[in-house]
Amino acid sequence: VVRIGIVGGTGYTGSELLRLLVTHPRVEVGVITSRGDAGQRVTDALPMLRGRCDDLTFEDPDRAALDGCDLVFFATPNGTAMQHAPALLDAGVRVVDLAADFRIKDIALWERWYGMPHAAPGLVDEAVYGLPELNRAAIRGARLVANPGCYPTAVTLGLLPLLEGGLVDPARVIADGKSGVSGAGRKANAGLLMAEVGESFKAYSVAGHRHEPEIEETLRLATGQQVGLTFVPHLVPMVRGIEATLYAALREPASDLHERYVARYAGEPFVDVMPAELPVETRSVRGTNVCRLAVLEPQGKGTVVVQAVIDNLVKGAAGQAVQNMNLMLGFAETEGLGSVALVP
Amino acid sequence: VVRIGIVGGTGYTGSELLRLLVTHPRVEVGVITSRGDAGQRVTDALPMLRGRCDDLTFEDPDRAALDGCDLVFFATPNGTAMQHAPALLDAGVRVVDLAADFRIKDIALWERWYGMPHAAPGLVDEAVYGLPELNRAAIRGARLVANPGCYPTAVTLGLLPLLEGGLVDPARVIADGKSGVSGAGRKANAGLLMAEVGESFKAYSVAGHRHEPEIEETLRLATGQQVGLTFVPHLVPMVRGIEATLYAALREPASDLHERYVARYAGEPFVDVMPAELPVETRSVRGTNVCRLAVLEPQGKGTVVVQAVIDNLVKGAAGQAVQNMNLMLGFAETEGLGSVALVP
Amino acid sequence: VVRIGIVGGTGYTGSELLRLLVTHPRVEVGVITSRGDAGQRVTDALPMLRGRCDDLTFEDPDRAALDGCDLVFFATPNGTAMQHAPALLDAGVRVVDLAADFRIKDIALWERWYGMPHAAPGLVDEAVYGLPELNRAAIRGARLVANPGCYPTAVTLGLLPLLEGGLVDPARVIADGKSGVSGAGRKANAGLLMAEVGESFKAYSVAGHRHEPEIEETLRLATGQQVGLTFVPHLVPMVRGIEATLYAALREPASDLHERYVARYAGEPFVDVMPAELPVETRSVRGTNVCRLAVLEPQGKGTVVVQAVIDNLVKGAAGQAVQNMNLMLGFAETEGLGSVALVP
Amino acid sequence: VVRIGIVGGTGYTGSELLRLLVTHPRVEVGVITSRGDAGQRVTDALPMLRGRCDDLTFEDPDRAALDGCDLVFFATPNGTAMQHAPALLDAGVRVVDLAADFRIKDIALWERWYGMPHAAPGLVDEAVYGLPELNRAAIRGARLVANPGCYPTAVTLGLLPLLEGGLVDPARVIADGKSGVSGAGRKANAGLLMAEVGESFKAYSVAGHRHEPEIEETLRLATGQQVGLTFVPHLVPMVRGIEATLYAALREPASDLHERYVARYAGEPFVDVMPAELPVETRSVRGTNVCRLAVLEPQGKGTVVVQAVIDNLVKGAAGQAVQNMNLMLGFAETEGLGSVALVP
Repeated sequence: VVRIGIVGGTGYTGSELLRLLVTHPRVEVGVITSRGDAGQRVTDALPMLRGRCDDLTFEDPDRAALDGCDLVFFATPNGTAMQHAPALLDAGVRVVDLAADFRIKDIALWERWYGMPHAAPGLVDEAVYGLPELNRAAIRGARLVANPGCYPTAVTLGLLPLLEGGLVDPARVIADGKSGVSGAGRKANAGLLMAEVGESFKAYSVAGHRHEPEIEETLRLATGQQVGLTFVPHLVPMVRGIEATLYAALREPASDLHERYVARYAGEPFVDVMPAELPVETRSVRGTNVCRLAVLEPQGKGTVVVQAVIDNLVKGAAGQAVQNMNLMLGFAETEGLGSVALVP
Repeated sequence: VVRIGIVGGTGYTGSELLRLLVTHPRVEVGVITSRGDAGQRVTDALPMLRGRCDDLTFEDPDRAALDGCDLVFFATPNGTAMQHAPALLDAGVRVVDLAADFRIKDIALWERWYGMPHAAPGLVDEAVYGLPELNRAAIRGARLVANPGCYPTAVTLGLLPLLEGGLVDPARVIADGKSGVSGAGRKANAGLLMAEVGESFKAYSVAGHRHEPEIEETLRLATGQQVGLTFVPHLVPMVRGIEATLYAALREPASDLHERYVARYAGEPFVDVMPAELPVETRSVRGTNVCRLAVLEPQGKGTVVVQAVIDNLVKGAAGQAVQNMNLMLGFAETEGLGSVALVP
Repeated sequence: VVRIGIVGGTGYTGSELLRLLVTHPRVEVGVITSRGDAGQRVTDALPMLRGRCDDLTFEDPDRAALDGCDLVFFATPNGTAMQHAPALLDAGVRVVDLAADFRIKDIALWERWYGMPHAAPGLVDEAVYGLPELNRAAIRGARLVANPGCYPTAVTLGLLPLLEGGLVDPARVIADGKSGVSGAGRKANAGLLMAEVGESFKAYSVAGHRHEPEIEETLRLATGQQVGLTFVPHLVPMVRGIEATLYAALREPASDLHERYVARYAGEPFVDVMPAELPVETRSVRGTNVCRLAVLEPQGKGTVVVQAVIDNLVKGAAGQAVQNMNLMLGFAETEGLGSVALVP
Repeated sequence: VVRIGIVGGTGYTGSELLRLLVTHPRVEVGVITSRGDAGQRVTDALPMLRGRCDDLTFEDPDRAALDGCDLVFFATPNGTAMQHAPALLDAGVRVVDLAADFRIKDIALWERWYGMPHAAPGLVDEAVYGLPELNRAAIRGARLVANPGCYPTAVTLGLLPLLEGGLVDPARVIADGKSGVSGAGRKANAGLLMAEVGESFKAYSVAGHRHEPEIEETLRLATGQQVGLTFVPHLVPMVRGIEATLYAALREPASDLHERYVARYAGEPFVDVMPAELPVETRSVRGTNVCRLAVLEPQGKGTVVVQAVIDNLVKGAAGQAVQNMNLMLGFAETEGLGSVALVP
């Protein structure tokens, strides 16, 4: 059995990794750290795991034997993984960072958006952007994977067929994103109290969001086109789920949009291209690693509309990280990711 | 005291009219009809009104003395008001239709989208589209007002300054709309059970929604430009509120967008142009007749983004209908509409 | 592989059975019926199952070859299973009824609460009440299992140790139940629209609910005591989950309540007795077959308080039905029921 | 016009006071304090108030001229009002404390539950418990009013007719309370993030809650009976509203329970005794100062069940405080409290 470490086990991506890994048949979680909860039993902090990992205790990240693991996930705030990845890689440990430290190749761009100097610029080139539908082969051989952001996963999967096919004007693409509140993490923040965000809806970070440069760079590297993206995220009064509605101008009439999407994602175990007649709803992927998509050109007006939904904590974070782990460790890509969406 | 009639008192727009009118100092509700609940006391069907209108009883619409009213609101499904408006107008009764019967001037267009022949085509020209910020003077003198749709109210108020000012390309405007579930009405519909729409988010009517031609026509008539709108509505797991995020391509750089909006809506009692730094959230207008707006051009990319929020049942329906009634009857425009938003 | 039939596949208990059975390693769903959706592909009605059972089509219940199944689940309204169970049992098919037809042994009592004559009174005695923690051995040999109601599952598991131990006065027991809206099923019902039940809380059926006689009879048969239960259910603005808070008067001071519960449920795979310090929250069992419990006597006042939570669609319906199926067919009791709760 | 001060203007009770007072015809808010937001415009922190009090700025509580006010509300954490009330009262200012400092007459009991020594024990006797339905005359003449807790308001109004009438055994009364999340205030608290409490339900403080001694003392002082109360509060995934379901053992059969409640609350402007057939739902009082009640004895079993609903921020806090202010200042008791519940 392969030994896994999780750095940052009490946030939502950390606990979601645990949820997936305790039933994964090929690995065991050997180390889990939490600076704030060091010494506490995992199941006391996360009672939904009672009976699943009763022997696991949070360790202090400064003392945990992470270098004895085969692979370590960083489910930490931005800026943490880049401090520790070099030593772990030197020790032969594979690393998947669920934060943003290694997502952007342009280091100056990264430093501008994240407001800190990069601590491991030498590793940025080596890191593979962990979107298997784009970089599967590279992920298989990677020592260090940058797990994509939640919005970027949905938006990139939604736009790839259009841009790869040269079907739309890349200069003016619009992504209207909507996320459940778990996307903001588990930190004490009065602005995310249920009394503040329940029964209400709003856009946020309209002037600029860090996921915008990530998406633009990914699409540029993937398709060779400079993409001008306007991305506006919104907060939905629900816990899980991301929906992105994407708009772009078709270069010429296209009657085969659905077929192109079906072809692009043929064989992909976690992308479902739906007929435009069916509802593309976040609950249809709740708890699963699936991205569901639909594409159409309403009323022949020349604007293509793509709908994409994911579970922000699964395909948008921990599930995709496990998918990447499966690839890196040579397991079946779908291992441990077979649950059915919880509906209703 | 002026005598008011409400046709269709048990739907959400009907009960919201009651909520507003029982505290309005200048009118009394003399007649309220409901085919399904005729003979029942209003407060038994709508217990939140206990103590406010205990003597009111739902009447059969076929027998109610609507022609004894000064003004009648139709809070009915599409296709009802056009059957009854001619006789009421002949009897000297003013009419406000909260449904769509008189919103679109192009009758063929209306019949295509609403799937029925128009029963009163001769009244369509006379009807005034009841958006006071656009048609205040005409509403004052009107016998028949077509109360705007909920999405069209938010989208039109959000786009007017851009299009009136010729600031954007009208050929490719995008409106990404989000609505709480009360927008779908109070009919038994398995698709709107809380177990179906709670904790989930989705787009709907992506291939085409009836509010799209309404918005396009209103903007064309108001600004003389043919507007090409792509409108995608979404369902938010909350009860009340509409948010619209609007995207258009600026013709040239504009540094005074906020100031233009402030100037356009100066003196408007129910439009609040917010600085872009403040959150534009639906709860900030809950229960009120206010539309709050913000405008900005993120990162100088040439795409302007407008956020607009309303309460779909107030400024998007019953509140705007009362605002129109105030204008039609010569009352102060804000009479009875002074409540503060319920936050949290 | 064992062949399973589901009668009534489009309601919430039917689709939840599908969710659990498509990943169950020992069975396959051979027949699924739906009168309203006969002929439709299952995945068109239930898109979250796309990729899991794409070949399955709803059949007309009057024509489906249910007698070719090894076991048939009835996920139908009350009064259906009793019409069809006799013929299926004669054909050697095992039957699990998720509705109430066989839950109450006192046929006159059943007929009074359910308002119809019983169609198969001769089978009532044979039917085993499918609460494994009470009737495991009998379920193993049963041809016909009456799957318990959702509230009765939580309330009975919560009260059994108190009543079996003779610790409380059975004459005046109080169960204050709270359920998410999926408990009311998927029928079009204006009273369960999200706009009616979202952001609100209320009791319902205060004058009497059908689950009260079910609980009273079960506890009487299990413990030999006449139990006087006052049961008040409430509707919670959430989709899944039941919480029951139970109150009874202790006959004498008891300092070992927690230990007694631990002992009573030792070895039970799906009952978790929690220390009273941890939160007993519905989300901690979301999507799982677990019942979590805590017991304490606040401030030594002589009233014992038990908290119990289940997922109403899993341990309260489809999951417990699968647990019963596992016992009836000789599988491991936990087979196919191993998922971890979806938190957050 | 009377001049009002609010200490602690950014919490939910403080902002709710503002919501009510900016439309109150007899008063003006002259001073509002907030230690954290001193110097900030009120409408920047609370944008829903834009257009209503644009000139108001939060002041530092240590410098604000509170002694120039006629009446000061303390919307502060427990332990604050008792520090400042003596000096204000000496300066001739009336005081209403929305926290718990003056609610309990037994000072030792208060100090045990609140974990601090009382700073103004000499004022406790003078303070009037501000439940107008119990203490109207005393409130009229009071200098210092202790505004009741939210749960105590609902539970006390629900139990008073039973205990005053000697109808039930006071030794074993059960109150199962449920509250929306705004009851917990606006402090940054990871446990109240929407991702933690949305789509879930739980009891909390089962071992003991501070509102229990408050209710027991109030009922004892009001009825002369020692009341043994078991109170279990629960958290509901909604923003506003409290429901309490109350259980007590009838001393003898009573067929006139409803009539007794109607008689007890005859003439009360803010208590509505509903027929047991109508739903007693929190939304029916949303945004209003009304408590709705229903009483019945289900199935003649000897246990009486009372349902009570209030808006925790209005009748449970700011609205009742304004009602008390109206009484203290000689205004009509209902002044400024006339809004209709926001349904849906």
